[in-house]
Amino acid sequence: MAQGVLHLVRSNGSLMTSRTGVELVVQRIASRSAKPGVDLLGAVFSTNVHDLVADPEVDVILELIGGEGLAKDLIESALAAGKPVVTANKAVIAAHGNQLLAGGNVPLRFEAAVAGAIPIIQSLRQGLAANRIDAIYGIINGTCNYMLTVMEEEGLAFEEVLAQAQALGYAEADPAFDIQGTDAAHKLTILAALGFGTSYDFSALYVEGITQIAAEDIQYAKELGFKIKHLGIAVHSDAGLETRVHPALVPESALLASVNGVMNAVQVVSDGAGETLFSGPGAGGAATASAVLADVLSLGSAIAGQSGAAAQRQNQNQNQNQDENQDKPKAGPAPAISRVAMDDIASACYLRIPTVDRPGVFAQVASALSAHSISIEAVIQKEQPASDASVSIVIMTNRVVESVVNAALKELSALDTVVGEITRIRVAPTH
Amino acid sequence: MAQGVLHLVRSNGSLMTSRTGVELVVQRIASRSAKPGVDLLGAVFSTNVHDLVADPEVDVILELIGGEGLAKDLIESALAAGKPVVTANKAVIAAHGNQLLAGGNVPLRFEAAVAGAIPIIQSLRQGLAANRIDAIYGIINGTCNYMLTVMEEEGLAFEEVLAQAQALGYAEADPAFDIQGTDAAHKLTILAALGFGTSYDFSALYVEGITQIAAEDIQYAKELGFKIKHLGIAVHSDAGLETRVHPALVPESALLASVNGVMNAVQVVSDGAGETLFSGPGAGGAATASAVLADVLSLGSAIAGQSGAAAQRQNQNQNQNQDENQDKPKAGPAPAISRVAMDDIASACYLRIPTVDRPGVFAQVASALSAHSISIEAVIQKEQPASDASVSIVIMTNRVVESVVNAALKELSALDTVVGEITRIRVAPTH
Repeated sequence: MAQGVLHLVRSNGSLMTSRTGVELVVQRIASRSAKPGVDLLGAVFSTNVHDLVADPEVDVILELIGGEGLAKDLIESALAAGKPVVTANKAVIAAHGNQLLAGGNVPLRFEAAVAGAIPIIQSLRQGLAANRIDAIYGIINGTCNYMLTVMEEEGLAFEEVLAQAQALGYAEADPAFDIQGTDAAHKLTILAALGFGTSYDFSALYVEGITQIAAEDIQYAKELGFKIKHLGIAVHSDAGLETRVHPALVPESALLASVNGVMNAVQVVSDGAGETLFSGPGAGGAATASAVLADVLSLGSAIAGQSGAAAQRQNQNQNQNQDENQDKPKAGPAPAISRVAMDDIASACYLRIPTVDRPGVFAQVASALSAHSISIEAVIQKEQPASDASVSIVIMTNRVVESVVNAALKELSALDTVVGEITRIRVAPTH
Repeated sequence: MAQGVLHLVRSNGSLMTSRTGVELVVQRIASRSAKPGVDLLGAVFSTNVHDLVADPEVDVILELIGGEGLAKDLIESALAAGKPVVTANKAVIAAHGNQLLAGGNVPLRFEAAVAGAIPIIQSLRQGLAANRIDAIYGIINGTCNYMLTVMEEEGLAFEEVLAQAQALGYAEADPAFDIQGTDAAHKLTILAALGFGTSYDFSALYVEGITQIAAEDIQYAKELGFKIKHLGIAVHSDAGLETRVHPALVPESALLASVNGVMNAVQVVSDGAGETLFSGPGAGGAATASAVLADVLSLGSAIAGQSGAAAQRQNQNQNQNQDENQDKPKAGPAPAISRVAMDDIASACYLRIPTVDRPGVFAQVASALSAHSISIEAVIQKEQPASDASVSIVIMTNRVVESVVNAALKELSALDTVVGEITRIRVAPTH
């Protein structure tokens, strides 16, 4: 990521200056490991990151360390020293955003923390600032989206696609952080805080990954007119704010359904702007560098405005800051918005139920659902595969509250004709 | 549009204040016609728009008149009086942008002029500011996109769909401005100027509308794996900048191909951020109001920062302006970027050639193309329709320079076996 930043500054530095009036100088670079063998653009090199804070020539500090320990220390000490910070660190913001942003006098920017190159933070803060946000839907983990796309296109099993993604560098050697939904949950925590003006509360999210999705689920979903996407969902209604991360069925005709591979996308539904969607690469050095530098240039404009006293006098009508207002909580701490418990959220559901292949089983399943007032909107029942004695009954339910579905699934699982784990995938809400 | 602004201020005013620190007060409203029968939120009403400029309580002027005459007058006199202006007027900016933005000391903002609610101007100026922009592709006319979508979904003829669009209010009684591409060309003029740092030069654009597209073209394109979209295209290469508006074949798998109905979308291809896409409603009172108010709030933050001297002293590290830098040309007039003449642009082409139904005609067509070194990549030739003596030969060519295709089409048209107008639709460039 740091190398991506250096590369963009080297290749586009003069373009950035002509566009924004800001000349970026890489003053000092710090890394705990040895000096990297790349062009440091004349910067001083340190192995102590706190040298960045101490250097009086440094105006803005870029935290590109990752993780929560040293990164958080650096952000805190920089802010305490009055130096604006730009970070790509979603984990730190999701976990410590309330604390780090509480002062608000010194800007802390994190465009790169969510959805890579996509300027979604700026769009929520400024471009859509006049709107009441009703919902945010995000494909915000590139690993999950890549895997689901390949599973769909090539009909491969989860494990095969995971191995392929690891070979291509789209999944880590330890993929848990991505495929179990934690990374997406960090990002949704940030989107929800910005979109709905509430606190950064990672613990309030319901989080599910994609490990239970089988290739056959993707095929069945297709027959039913849906794609399966791993979504971060934040919906605000009279009941409160629901924030959840899980695989979801999205209608094939929805634009989100066409966001494939490692691309990310965030859809924002609001009262004025309606349905807006922002898509782009969610990761990668250059994409992240683009977002980091957007923040740096915006801070740089503010600093240039401040120090250019002559220019300031010339333009007394307009010069002043919007950064200050942008970073600072307007009226004390963020208001508490009640969170909807997962048990109370209603979704239509896709259920794949592995059963023995025997007459009367479907009736038994239907009757168990009916006992919970769950109605069946669509069914797929295929011929028995040659290699296996079980068959899958695939059912689309009406919109049912989570606690009711859970009770029904518990009962279904206990039937002796149900011979394996039931897969339940929620249908994404629509507006 | 003005009513959309009033509505959003009324419903979301306090939300805007909590988000941005700016309290919007609608001080004065002017309209040449009678006072409208809506809640003016306590504003003073005038029938002379210049009263807005004269009112010392007015900090920012919203020009929502449309057209070029009075609107341009108002913008000029407001800027001359040192009052920032927000406009949704693409025609004025496309035609007079160089002149109106030349001073640069007083902000003139026009987020709403392109792609309605989508914060594309801000994204080009700030979110993607670190990137070298290589290409911009836009679905930027909702009327055209709606019509092409309905023609595809319902197989209806152009005239039928136009009547339907007019009935629904998606097309004007005089639809020429939209369906002949002028509206899209205004918007592309603005996108090109911002994306590539060049002048506002409407006359440099090649402009074609959708009036020659038949329902059968959409079906043939589908068989070939494409959708037909009306695109604004700006591509920067070593040869210079090409800017053109015309229907184009877009691969079905491209995200742009899934932007349907009245929705707009702008795809930006850049060196750091890669392929980013911004989609949303391109028109409508609420969507436009969202963009207008984003500009107003951003200017309001600047003004609040300026007048809040106490707050300013408290925050000496950060307070100052980025607005000033954003609106002002950095180094004199925009640099001239050479424009590529339409004759020199290379595209793969879809050709639908109506011919008599006689043996040897295809060979004759193929040989005419071959004489111009145009090769045939795919062909569709259908059985003769019962009601007509002609058949359509549909050909996809390789990528050929425009002047060569034009010469070949001239020759083909002169053949006595070609019995009608040849339809040529270019394939959108890919990156």
